[in-house]
Amino acid sequence: MAMVCLSDFEAYAKKYLPKIAWDFFAAGADDCSTRDENILAYQRIRFRPRILQDVSVMDIRTKLLGTEISFPVGIAPTGFHQLAWPDGEKSTARAAKAMNTCYIASTYSTCTLEEISAAAPGGLRWFQLYIHRNRAVSQQLVQQAVALGFQGLVLTADLPYTGKRRDDVRNGFCLPPHMKLKNLEGAFEVCKMSPPFHSLLDPSVTWNDIYWLRSLTQLPIIIKGILTKEDAELAVRHGVQGIIVSNHGGRQLDGGPATIDALVEVVEAVQGRVEVYLDGGIRKGSDVLKALALGAKCVFIGRPALWGLAYKGEEGLQEVLRILQDEFRLSMALAGCASVSEIGRHLVQFSKL
Amino acid sequence: MAMVCLSDFEAYAKKYLPKIAWDFFAAGADDCSTRDENILAYQRIRFRPRILQDVSVMDIRTKLLGTEISFPVGIAPTGFHQLAWPDGEKSTARAAKAMNTCYIASTYSTCTLEEISAAAPGGLRWFQLYIHRNRAVSQQLVQQAVALGFQGLVLTADLPYTGKRRDDVRNGFCLPPHMKLKNLEGAFEVCKMSPPFHSLLDPSVTWNDIYWLRSLTQLPIIIKGILTKEDAELAVRHGVQGIIVSNHGGRQLDGGPATIDALVEVVEAVQGRVEVYLDGGIRKGSDVLKALALGAKCVFIGRPALWGLAYKGEEGLQEVLRILQDEFRLSMALAGCASVSEIGRHLVQFSKL
Amino acid sequence: MAMVCLSDFEAYAKKYLPKIAWDFFAAGADDCSTRDENILAYQRIRFRPRILQDVSVMDIRTKLLGTEISFPVGIAPTGFHQLAWPDGEKSTARAAKAMNTCYIASTYSTCTLEEISAAAPGGLRWFQLYIHRNRAVSQQLVQQAVALGFQGLVLTADLPYTGKRRDDVRNGFCLPPHMKLKNLEGAFEVCKMSPPFHSLLDPSVTWNDIYWLRSLTQLPIIIKGILTKEDAELAVRHGVQGIIVSNHGGRQLDGGPATIDALVEVVEAVQGRVEVYLDGGIRKGSDVLKALALGAKCVFIGRPALWGLAYKGEEGLQEVLRILQDEFRLSMALAGCASVSEIGRHLVQFSKL
Amino acid sequence: MAMVCLSDFEAYAKKYLPKIAWDFFAAGADDCSTRDENILAYQRIRFRPRILQDVSVMDIRTKLLGTEISFPVGIAPTGFHQLAWPDGEKSTARAAKAMNTCYIASTYSTCTLEEISAAAPGGLRWFQLYIHRNRAVSQQLVQQAVALGFQGLVLTADLPYTGKRRDDVRNGFCLPPHMKLKNLEGAFEVCKMSPPFHSLLDPSVTWNDIYWLRSLTQLPIIIKGILTKEDAELAVRHGVQGIIVSNHGGRQLDGGPATIDALVEVVEAVQGRVEVYLDGGIRKGSDVLKALALGAKCVFIGRPALWGLAYKGEEGLQEVLRILQDEFRLSMALAGCASVSEIGRHLVQFSKL
Repeated sequence: MAMVCLSDFEAYAKKYLPKIAWDFFAAGADDCSTRDENILAYQRIRFRPRILQDVSVMDIRTKLLGTEISFPVGIAPTGFHQLAWPDGEKSTARAAKAMNTCYIASTYSTCTLEEISAAAPGGLRWFQLYIHRNRAVSQQLVQQAVALGFQGLVLTADLPYTGKRRDDVRNGFCLPPHMKLKNLEGAFEVCKMSPPFHSLLDPSVTWNDIYWLRSLTQLPIIIKGILTKEDAELAVRHGVQGIIVSNHGGRQLDGGPATIDALVEVVEAVQGRVEVYLDGGIRKGSDVLKALALGAKCVFIGRPALWGLAYKGEEGLQEVLRILQDEFRLSMALAGCASVSEIGRHLVQFSKL
Repeated sequence: MAMVCLSDFEAYAKKYLPKIAWDFFAAGADDCSTRDENILAYQRIRFRPRILQDVSVMDIRTKLLGTEISFPVGIAPTGFHQLAWPDGEKSTARAAKAMNTCYIASTYSTCTLEEISAAAPGGLRWFQLYIHRNRAVSQQLVQQAVALGFQGLVLTADLPYTGKRRDDVRNGFCLPPHMKLKNLEGAFEVCKMSPPFHSLLDPSVTWNDIYWLRSLTQLPIIIKGILTKEDAELAVRHGVQGIIVSNHGGRQLDGGPATIDALVEVVEAVQGRVEVYLDGGIRKGSDVLKALALGAKCVFIGRPALWGLAYKGEEGLQEVLRILQDEFRLSMALAGCASVSEIGRHLVQFSKL
Repeated sequence: MAMVCLSDFEAYAKKYLPKIAWDFFAAGADDCSTRDENILAYQRIRFRPRILQDVSVMDIRTKLLGTEISFPVGIAPTGFHQLAWPDGEKSTARAAKAMNTCYIASTYSTCTLEEISAAAPGGLRWFQLYIHRNRAVSQQLVQQAVALGFQGLVLTADLPYTGKRRDDVRNGFCLPPHMKLKNLEGAFEVCKMSPPFHSLLDPSVTWNDIYWLRSLTQLPIIIKGILTKEDAELAVRHGVQGIIVSNHGGRQLDGGPATIDALVEVVEAVQGRVEVYLDGGIRKGSDVLKALALGAKCVFIGRPALWGLAYKGEEGLQEVLRILQDEFRLSMALAGCASVSEIGRHLVQFSKL
Repeated sequence: MAMVCLSDFEAYAKKYLPKIAWDFFAAGADDCSTRDENILAYQRIRFRPRILQDVSVMDIRTKLLGTEISFPVGIAPTGFHQLAWPDGEKSTARAAKAMNTCYIASTYSTCTLEEISAAAPGGLRWFQLYIHRNRAVSQQLVQQAVALGFQGLVLTADLPYTGKRRDDVRNGFCLPPHMKLKNLEGAFEVCKMSPPFHSLLDPSVTWNDIYWLRSLTQLPIIIKGILTKEDAELAVRHGVQGIIVSNHGGRQLDGGPATIDALVEVVEAVQGRVEVYLDGGIRKGSDVLKALALGAKCVFIGRPALWGLAYKGEEGLQEVLRILQDEFRLSMALAGCASVSEIGRHLVQFSKL
């Protein structure tokens, strides 16, 4: 079967992954309405394509906090890559480096940060952090990430507790015995997932902890999980360098807005003071173009990256990225933009439907 | 099968209840459009979740007219609980007490008010009243409720006649011979249900009858069935203590608004002068949060309580309440609220769809 | 099978009528979108029901141009009733009289006007007219209707040519040999239906022909087929006594508005100068209530009357009318109205959906 | 099977064409959302039909840049007609001439321009041009079209690269060996379709190339692919004689607007300075009427023409055009318009849905 678009990878993963793993990756909270809205919302955005622009030379590169990447799509932090492919996050790191883009490695990786670094030396990587009740654990992870050359620190702020994902509860989801959350070994008992698992995360984290993180490192801090202008304003005031508009793939609070809808108010509030990114619902190159037209500097893919891994590991993920890259370039050209800098709000309108 | 969410109880009840009982509980008037809208309307409300709030200590308690309950979900008045479980309303009373919440016992109970009281002494209970053509019957019931320690009187105001529930007509629904409307024995012949049944209710009741009720008791009067700002204003002027925004689960006038939609105009009209509650369409903890964000002090569940009873009687109903409680607490935390007092209008927006 | 609501009659008719007859009655033009919109549009109208009104004595009578009818639902003009029931329009006339409402007999009846009159002497009837190229034919019909005691003249104005009803074309629809358009015998050859059939109607009819009609009779003239405020204004200026907002059951121009939607602008334009009625999409008593709330004085049913005939002739049609009557009375009571005069615009709102 | 409406031809073509050809004709870009929107958008437009207009004499003729055609529907440029019918574009030319309308012959025809001209001498034809990297090829084609009596030059401006049509990629679509792009023979290698195929088109074309085209010929220049007011304004300023609002049948940038939606802003921007046409989504005569009411001078059909060819070649296409003509005439009459000049913006409104 030819892999023509990202849905082909999704179908493959659904067919070949163990049900418990597929369910875990696919899960949304409660009725999954926010998860599904992340995708549906793109259909309500219409392009206003311009014609007769010289698009013979296309430049789709962009910069993340000053570092160039090949196109404005990175890898969002997701956990447990070994559930998708034996080499786990090492494959992810290799694919991201090969495609010259950014990989945000999750605290909940099944490889150590050292392994990830060693797998693809010199790749652009950020480290995603959950703050634990035992702050020493988090501090140690941050320092390790710094030492290993990670170039950004992504604080996930929308998981004081884990969302209710019905299928995971039904399946009694937990990691298979041979997989470990290697970055947390010793810090707590790994095999008990879900609510007890996350009881080690600190639900008392507040904006003031941004200052504590800042005290640990000079790395740029990116905050992930912002959906309102009020929180966007607070993020800027607390000195972060970037914001990821995210609803955790619809896995946390069901009933929240699609990220592409929330992006509008966040971008308007931020007024260019920090970079704004987005994850959730990206399935086609034209989705990327819509997000950039609405003000995102870059988007990150979560589930599609896992489907790519499930298909053929590092090679599969590269294929996913390459398809997105081709589609993004083509969409840009057909919309009349020869470089990312030409993309703007004028390119899209919200459908009255 | 694990009972993970309220839909699981619904599926169980549909499978195991006799069809005639299931149909009676599930019935909506005419095309059931209002019944279904009660649920669909929640999907058009989107959260605006706030992050990085300290939600380590969650307080989900609230007060109903000054009396504390464990969380803002009570049991709405529904009839004929023995159709769902042999112990009928006695089980309902026990579950409500165990979960420390309010149970509104229906005039159309299959247990006497004495039995209900004795089953769960000290539980917070309100009594739901229909006004009969023979006012002495109603007066006697009110006095009995007062004597038994019921703490509120809920006047159902949207049933001058019974709505047309097609399946009940087709099924020729009536109570099985061994069940009785025990609070009304002697007052009228029980076995003839539907239109003739309700011909003993008084369709001439008007706002002035609130004064008559007030003359019978000092209990707080709560009026159930309000859907407009005009009637909300009238209710306040007539001295009620509370309003339940309700369309009788979509069983009366088909084509009326979803209760969560009507709540907005009622809350705005009432301006905090009396407490406003809601029933209809609550299926998840996040629905409760949406209702509170729009101004409800508490919500009441009807059909889900019956599903819980049908599953395992008092234990099943407790399970339903516990799930709602857990989901509500989690939704609050994920929306950034540590206590009920932090919930407000800013938490939600109406989707343009 | 119990006949509980109008859909039951529809299902019966679909099952038992010959396909060619069912298709003819059910047909809409082109994609049938206007036919279907006639029904869907009611779902976008929400009641604002009022409670605690004295509805112990219900008065659902109304008047059509001064003549009292038992409730505001009459029989719209439809053709070929013998396709539904052997006695054809005679049964229709009997049922309408028995239920004390108005029957608009069609030019395209399969009984003569004399037969219709004789079947139910003294019944309230209006005569529906198509203007033929040969004006003498029309003039003679009008004079006959006057002589037979018809009390109104309904000019159908939306059929200069017949709409394209795909199924009729596929079926090669024409009347069976033993049925005749008895009011037109001699005037033209009956057995060739569809386009050729209607080629005898005059597509050059204009507003001036209202004056010609007026010259023939002093009967009230009601114009059927108005969908815009502009035409409503013209109708009033040309001295008609009533307007039927109609799209011919969606059988003429596909893509036109639902009649309940068009009613709003017509009522607003007319400002009470003439009576405004509606046909199309009435399937429940609550639909009647919505139409009256939006300003219709009365509604007329087309297809449901035919389903009633197909079920049991005059008796079946009475059953249809009785169900509508009961539902209308109940809806009124549940909305808080004890008489038709209390129904008003405040009772409804248009859903944002 | 009777061919009653255009969908019948679609069903026929889907059934009898080789899958690879059907897929190619049916294809839309990516998720085909724009392709489908082209059709769905018509359902959101409602007529405001006027009654009692004299429609006994109907005049449905219009003029394209001064040349009369029998009704405002022409044949849009589509490629590879031999995939639908052995005689290919020769049949198309004959059908268009027989029906006295305009045929826009595609650069990607499987017959030469000479063959097309010879097949139907004297027919009204425009030539559709893609600009090649090798401008000499394009120049030669333009000069040939002029010499052969083509009366307009249509520049397709929305295909700097080919859109991603998933089925074509999966099918490995290319022309069968016995078909050739005869107008381009010698200019490049034909058998390799899709991306490589179009790599010979020039993605550097800009508005200035309009001046180059003008330098080649005095023929009217019509620009195809405009979807915004900004580009409409630019087109007028660059001296074109006509604009075709088009999204290439949804085959280029998925996520763009339906053409009937884009038409509104283009017509408003153009203010009558040049003629505005539309293609995409026309399936019924009433669609044509809606487009004209919103300001289009004429519409063009793409896929329906191919379905007609697939059905019976020139005869089938005539049947398609005749059905559209009959439906358009009937829709006009039912909307109260006796001639094209009476069609205007007042005839339609956008549904709130």
